[in-house]
Amino acid sequence: MTSLQLSAKEEMVERFLDAAARGDLNQVSTMLSQSSSLIKQTGYSGWTALMLGARNGHYPVVEALLAHGCDKFSVNSSSQTAYDIAKFWGHRHISNLLGRTDDGSQRVLPGADLHQQENYFSRETLDRLSAKRTDKVWLEDKQSGPNTVYLLFSNCSPMVTSLQEDDNAGGENQLCRFRYETVKDLLQKPATVLIFLGVEKRKKPSSQTVDGMREPPAWFAVNTDEDSAELLKRCREKNCCFPKTPNRDLLKFSEEEAGIVAQARSVLAWHSRYSFCPTCGSSTRVEEGGYKRSCLNSDCRSLKGVHNTCYPRVDPVVIMLVIHPDGNQCLLGRKKIFPVGMFSCLAGFIEPGETLEEAVRREVEEESGVKVGPVQYISCQPWPMPSNLMIGCLAVAISTDIKVDEKEIEEARWFQRQQVIDSFRGTRPAFTIPPRQTIAHQLIRHWIGMNSNL
Amino acid sequence: MTSLQLSAKEEMVERFLDAAARGDLNQVSTMLSQSSSLIKQTGYSGWTALMLGARNGHYPVVEALLAHGCDKFSVNSSSQTAYDIAKFWGHRHISNLLGRTDDGSQRVLPGADLHQQENYFSRETLDRLSAKRTDKVWLEDKQSGPNTVYLLFSNCSPMVTSLQEDDNAGGENQLCRFRYETVKDLLQKPATVLIFLGVEKRKKPSSQTVDGMREPPAWFAVNTDEDSAELLKRCREKNCCFPKTPNRDLLKFSEEEAGIVAQARSVLAWHSRYSFCPTCGSSTRVEEGGYKRSCLNSDCRSLKGVHNTCYPRVDPVVIMLVIHPDGNQCLLGRKKIFPVGMFSCLAGFIEPGETLEEAVRREVEEESGVKVGPVQYISCQPWPMPSNLMIGCLAVAISTDIKVDEKEIEEARWFQRQQVIDSFRGTRPAFTIPPRQTIAHQLIRHWIGMNSNL
Repeated sequence: MTSLQLSAKEEMVERFLDAAARGDLNQVSTMLSQSSSLIKQTGYSGWTALMLGARNGHYPVVEALLAHGCDKFSVNSSSQTAYDIAKFWGHRHISNLLGRTDDGSQRVLPGADLHQQENYFSRETLDRLSAKRTDKVWLEDKQSGPNTVYLLFSNCSPMVTSLQEDDNAGGENQLCRFRYETVKDLLQKPATVLIFLGVEKRKKPSSQTVDGMREPPAWFAVNTDEDSAELLKRCREKNCCFPKTPNRDLLKFSEEEAGIVAQARSVLAWHSRYSFCPTCGSSTRVEEGGYKRSCLNSDCRSLKGVHNTCYPRVDPVVIMLVIHPDGNQCLLGRKKIFPVGMFSCLAGFIEPGETLEEAVRREVEEESGVKVGPVQYISCQPWPMPSNLMIGCLAVAISTDIKVDEKEIEEARWFQRQQVIDSFRGTRPAFTIPPRQTIAHQLIRHWIGMNSNL
Repeated sequence: MTSLQLSAKEEMVERFLDAAARGDLNQVSTMLSQSSSLIKQTGYSGWTALMLGARNGHYPVVEALLAHGCDKFSVNSSSQTAYDIAKFWGHRHISNLLGRTDDGSQRVLPGADLHQQENYFSRETLDRLSAKRTDKVWLEDKQSGPNTVYLLFSNCSPMVTSLQEDDNAGGENQLCRFRYETVKDLLQKPATVLIFLGVEKRKKPSSQTVDGMREPPAWFAVNTDEDSAELLKRCREKNCCFPKTPNRDLLKFSEEEAGIVAQARSVLAWHSRYSFCPTCGSSTRVEEGGYKRSCLNSDCRSLKGVHNTCYPRVDPVVIMLVIHPDGNQCLLGRKKIFPVGMFSCLAGFIEPGETLEEAVRREVEEESGVKVGPVQYISCQPWPMPSNLMIGCLAVAISTDIKVDEKEIEEARWFQRQQVIDSFRGTRPAFTIPPRQTIAHQLIRHWIGMNSNL
């Protein structure tokens, strides 16, 4: 670790880092004019002047360092970018500055999207207002609200407008949005399931008024057993449809809509699988805005006290990028069902009575025979097929021999960092990387974005 | 951050930290003999000489620093102890050295238990061998194995030996262990549920042999509807019993047994609640060593493909210590059911389509009205009542006004760091801290163990 091999002639580096940490703009500028290479230097734990300035909230210093063209994507040994550091310590003006791209727009940095819940399916544009789920009057009022938005689902697939005729991954889907008048007859049908998704988040929360127009729009999801052809007739736009490849099409939404789809589809999938009481086998009734099912058998245990049988199920899954002890290779596997040439992170369900770290060790050893030591949480991603929470981790291997469990995966292999970088660039790709919408993609990108400390 | 305010006269500190990082034992010893106060000094990110030596695997340096009485409990700005760092970078000989207490025994450090899954219910002493669950022949052979261990449960409560007559929190419980001969008649009863827990972990994995004695013992959990009085007759020891306060008694096991109880009780609780198929309401059959229930209705959707309805449920929960923007207070709440004077971390279930970070922000705002910005994962804990995974986080508040949702909690309050420390010490306690077996206790301890950077 060169950043730790200090020597007398590196005192200048220390003075420079110190100036950035103290917010001494004059000294930072002076020293940079003397030696521009200072801007690349790191101190303990790989902290750059930019990170130190960001950590301590020194806006002018961060601005000056960026103006001098420092690399805002570099990470410290905790794999944090300056953006992550500014965000974590709550210096918003600085994280906004660092989050901005050269064209001035606000975009997410490779590292940042992992720390800031910017994985696909992860953006929350609605306030769930879960307390309102038990307020029948409020909910019914919202249902008929003039600006209320309805999404239509059939077999848990949302009706969409396909923005491109061709069905390539490039083609983007947009949710079809309906008003109360268009769907109110559907709401009367017994087989219809209605989910209250929430209200649109507002920058400045406005005091609620009787006038519906001045309140943020409420969103509902509706799943019916009505024939999809019938449903499509409700839609004026020509190119509305229910996707032919439901799961693949769930990856074609904008970040905003993907988050809404993740919520709606997970809850609807629960209703389609859990319509009977698992404790006694009786039928159940939908309650609380679609977030509860109560057993209709008044003698059922599930009615005494609070039981998870009555609430939507979320399955926690660990997904991990395993790093070779030499720090320069990662372990990826492929399942038979994968597209040709694609390799991805190993993953598996967390079992009862298991920590996520133990689940990572167990799954990696079961699937690949590789033993794992340290495990580090990176970020997570809801995955609405049907309702998983993918918990993304980096794991450091303490053994390297691979012995694949063919029931789980077809092949597992160590890939050199350079092979991974080439595969991202598409230059001499050693394998196909999973799509950007997956946390596996983000974990791999995160790793190659990291410095050589890990 | 004084550790960042470097000046010329602190170059000596840098040389000292550098020597520790490079593993230069001579220079470390020489400089310490000149100025013993060096041992307390920190570099960027609050890294001490001990941490740098531990990070780079320099055993003699770590040994020397400990011999000079350095504080091995101090943490860097990522709240890692030297023990955590050595563990994370895989330097076992060093983490063992740092994990040792003054009396020579191996105990867990305040910070370490969070990073090393040493929360109560978190220790894995059994290898689950999940691949063997489908191997009926192997499982049946194990069931009658001479060294196989059986645990008896009634209503998901384990039969225990109480090591102390008084029923104080002090009293420890020990699991009653049985051999095949004692329970084999129970295994024939239709209402009995049998769970394969795994085999005891071995330092050196021994090649499996036909001779059962030479294999590590297999463990099973048995839940029956047989009258507990009848069950107790099977037990030679006088002081065997089924706890009067089942949940409280689950906190009285050793770390080793607590992990086994967490696994067994979670799976048994799932069987007791999910004995009917939620998709069609039919009865189900137990399979795969107690880790699967299949619908008996051959037309059921749940039999086509893989459905979560057939597998044990784990409910992910976020539990968070919210830190005041001033970094010197934390937010704790109390429920009506809490013991008098006890305050704890806020917590809540992760909803479908939600990241754990968003769940933290939603729950804190719902329960206390406080808005949260940055969220940092710390560690997790299985909680077998019935089958939760408690995901422990630190969260930084971006607003401070408290508005409690009385449905959820009775009171929420900001506590000064000093009040929390006093409450731990029992000197002028401002409130009662949750028991050490809870991750809430560990999160609070973790926070006051941290340096003043947060």
